[in-house]
Amino acid sequence: MTAPAFIAVDWGTTSMRAALVSREGDALARAPAGEGILKAAERGFEATLFDAVAALAAPAEAPILLAGMIGSRNGWVEVPYAVCPAGPEALVAGAARREVRGRTLVFIPGLSCEHDGRPDVMRGEETQIFGACVGPGAEIVLPGTHSKWASLSGGRIAGFRTYMTGELYAALRGHTILGALARGEAADEAAFARGVETGAGEAALTHALFSARTLALFGRLAAEAVPSYLSGLLIGAELADARRRIAPGARVLVVGEARLTARYVAAGRLLGLDLAPGPEDAAFRGLARLHAAMGEIA
Amino acid sequence: MTAPAFIAVDWGTTSMRAALVSREGDALARAPAGEGILKAAERGFEATLFDAVAALAAPAEAPILLAGMIGSRNGWVEVPYAVCPAGPEALVAGAARREVRGRTLVFIPGLSCEHDGRPDVMRGEETQIFGACVGPGAEIVLPGTHSKWASLSGGRIAGFRTYMTGELYAALRGHTILGALARGEAADEAAFARGVETGAGEAALTHALFSARTLALFGRLAAEAVPSYLSGLLIGAELADARRRIAPGARVLVVGEARLTARYVAAGRLLGLDLAPGPEDAAFRGLARLHAAMGEIA
Repeated sequence: MTAPAFIAVDWGTTSMRAALVSREGDALARAPAGEGILKAAERGFEATLFDAVAALAAPAEAPILLAGMIGSRNGWVEVPYAVCPAGPEALVAGAARREVRGRTLVFIPGLSCEHDGRPDVMRGEETQIFGACVGPGAEIVLPGTHSKWASLSGGRIAGFRTYMTGELYAALRGHTILGALARGEAADEAAFARGVETGAGEAALTHALFSARTLALFGRLAAEAVPSYLSGLLIGAELADARRRIAPGARVLVVGEARLTARYVAAGRLLGLDLAPGPEDAAFRGLARLHAAMGEIA
Repeated sequence: MTAPAFIAVDWGTTSMRAALVSREGDALARAPAGEGILKAAERGFEATLFDAVAALAAPAEAPILLAGMIGSRNGWVEVPYAVCPAGPEALVAGAARREVRGRTLVFIPGLSCEHDGRPDVMRGEETQIFGACVGPGAEIVLPGTHSKWASLSGGRIAGFRTYMTGELYAALRGHTILGALARGEAADEAAFARGVETGAGEAALTHALFSARTLALFGRLAAEAVPSYLSGLLIGAELADARRRIAPGARVLVVGEARLTARYVAAGRLLGLDLAPGPEDAAFRGLARLHAAMGEIA
């Protein structure tokens, strides 16, 4: 039941996680975290990958399934995006295969959709979504640098939207007057809540953001509370937009880093959204579903 | 009629403009541009100011009226904000006076208002507004790092809203993945228009912004067009919010740097807003109105 079936690799821009995984999606052994594609590109993707593989004591015939930015233009093998709506079989059909050092490497494609003529894209999240959502229908958010909200219907990802929440937070914190007024990290729950309500209630984000400065200027927000308030503004604006697009009362799974997930759940509670933490190891579980789909297709 | 009446100083964060001005607000002589408060603080505000004054051959009794960030916490003399609604007489009443080297210096206060418990502030723009708007009522926008939309009613500034449009553009261009894909300056009219319509039509700015990346990724937007598209997204979002707050068909004066003013006028045309360039030297003309109000009060 827990025999190793394949090697799962979740390879993003800044980190790589690899594990030996069973058919059921359980990680039986984990390699130490490796370099993301930015740094691995310098050293060589093959060397980086096989260092991780060597740590796993995997059966010789186990294939390697790779998801994430490793399949992008700046990655190892560029795999064209599959197009929504797409289920696991579409991802497998669009995967790129390579034979390297006697093993089969399977690069999973990212996913694209369109909003009024504007494309939207993800790479890696599509795999996490299939790992987190076992039923045919679901709403799911994957918070982060580029937060993704996706809808699953009939077992396929019907569509999704990207919000540049995390990247905007970093740019504002590091390179604007708002950051100059801020001290420390985002850890003030009351200031976060105040930001969430303001960000959700104010239509223009570029206007709402300025209140992080003026509240501090007027002594109504401590410098230590500014990062939390700013985080709340951005997450509040994201959730308010997402709320308009999902059915009232629908449960939304949150799949991401634990602290950020907790922040989204808290923000959802303030805005009447039922956000609940999703399973861990969603990427490995998603790759297990794709591995199973490979078997069905082959 | 054109006798010199006072020395007008428009002193912001990054530059200082001084002129000898008539009662009617005409600049009779201009000093070379001086250092903004950030650099002038190192050298000394007094030396910086009197270098400019020396270039003007002003009558010995002419007072010096100063508007802008020079009256802020990081300036020379912190002048508390006047509160909206406020007319020229309120600004004069709140001004701070100092005698320096035998001249009277009058530091004009900034202005504040409140939006649902959140303060908003300006420093310098209040003076430009009174310089640009001679009638009792007007709508006006002063685009820039922190764009300001203000309403004048009964000769007083009733309220205003700040949008961090310019600063957000710089942060996105310089410090996010959107900037990494962009080449050159914002000079592509078609891409700008496309950005304006997307920014105005899409409720969530953090989502709309991502399209600057995906359109480039899919080859539907040239790298040289990304800056214009990005500028359009931000200005479109600002104008769409402002449009909700002003009477349909109202003319809005635009007071700012010529190229940016032209961009706002073009964006307004796309969104059904009647934006028209305002007068030049609005700061000097505004200071002339305040100078006149000083005479009435004294």
